[in-house]
Amino acid sequence: MVDPALYLIPAQLSDGDLTQVLPQYNFALVREIKHFVVENVRSARRFLKKCDREIDIDTLTFYELNEHTPIERVASYLQPLEQGHPMGVISEAGCPAVADPGADLVAIAQSKGLLVKPLVGPSSILLGLMGSGFNGQSFAFVGYLPIDASARVRKFKEMEHRILHENQTQIFIETPYRNNTLIADMLKHLPPGLKLCVASDITGAGEHIVTRTIKQWAAQPPVLAKVPTIYLLYK
Amino acid sequence: MVDPALYLIPAQLSDGDLTQVLPQYNFALVREIKHFVVENVRSARRFLKKCDREIDIDTLTFYELNEHTPIERVASYLQPLEQGHPMGVISEAGCPAVADPGADLVAIAQSKGLLVKPLVGPSSILLGLMGSGFNGQSFAFVGYLPIDASARVRKFKEMEHRILHENQTQIFIETPYRNNTLIADMLKHLPPGLKLCVASDITGAGEHIVTRTIKQWAAQPPVLAKVPTIYLLYK
Repeated sequence: MVDPALYLIPAQLSDGDLTQVLPQYNFALVREIKHFVVENVRSARRFLKKCDREIDIDTLTFYELNEHTPIERVASYLQPLEQGHPMGVISEAGCPAVADPGADLVAIAQSKGLLVKPLVGPSSILLGLMGSGFNGQSFAFVGYLPIDASARVRKFKEMEHRILHENQTQIFIETPYRNNTLIADMLKHLPPGLKLCVASDITGAGEHIVTRTIKQWAAQPPVLAKVPTIYLLYK
Repeated sequence: MVDPALYLIPAQLSDGDLTQVLPQYNFALVREIKHFVVENVRSARRFLKKCDREIDIDTLTFYELNEHTPIERVASYLQPLEQGHPMGVISEAGCPAVADPGADLVAIAQSKGLLVKPLVGPSSILLGLMGSGFNGQSFAFVGYLPIDASARVRKFKEMEHRILHENQTQIFIETPYRNNTLIADMLKHLPPGLKLCVASDITGAGEHIVTRTIKQWAAQPPVLAKVPTIYLLYK
């Protein structure tokens, strides 16, 4: 029997062998859990089947959690845990509560004094940072950049300032179909000596983590199409 | 045969079963590597033996990398990889290049166009963030806070500002023997309504990830002694 806790269970970032990106422990643990709060029920079922082919999906209860879930309903999801049953949180890809839903649920669990147990798994932010060669003693993840052109340029200026004056690596993401617009914007607005790491399809067959100066990228821009990509900037 | 690349190999954060925190893939991979850049040779040997009892340590070459290693020597470490041999990077605990040595080496590898492959493993920053319930869409890791009292108070003010005005979770660490001083400083200088997550001995037997307001912590301060701890602040 596992401790009654809210287990934060990372999912894979790309197709492929789960044993490449998740510890053995996670597979053993999911077998012990009957209640799952998930970003998407279909993906969660598929993920659990991949963790353990023998798992009996029909004995499990799923609670859907995404940006549309009202906060009162989120709080009610924790009832099984309050009654002593372990619960799992699974997001669409990567680590729950980091650039993904789940933080609200964890915050409620914390405020109720419930035990929270994060598990190890792939995070494109962390893996991108490791592979970039940029400062890992100080870094910020800022999510998505503004879409509006002038707000975006202001954000570039602010990131540049924090890179130069605080030695802080700046990390952000973009929805895949906007990758090429973002790259064009960076090549246009960032100083040529600044370094950009483009980290695509992390842990996938097409993983590509490459750091170049803006000037070097301008001479040979990355072709990304619709691949999940994370961006990092540093001096 | 594995690709000739610079593999960034996370180590455990605390004693205990490696299969709880590292994917099976990592154990298979280390068997294929003969050249390791490591923060500490003794710990790296012990870690590799734990990954695979059969490993013949005497056939391996170790290159020491820490804050005292001159940068020219760091660059020379990459020769085996430039000749087509896979290399591994292992830090004392957690993920190489994130709040740990290795970023300089990765930066040189990137500038030479060498392949860099980060592997999945435990990061106290990421696990602490997941477990805190704080904003995972925007967060900053700032390393160690200043020791000087007035510089430290200025840093608290800056972090408070970024929490309130940018909704950015602030994350930092302290050397274990200074944990209690840091906590006393936070209870003295931070507003009572701010939330502090204290995450100790992550992935260890004494793991404790607890979020409370400063006011609640003041009523019952955490007793940390010399446990590795990471701190997170949010509103």
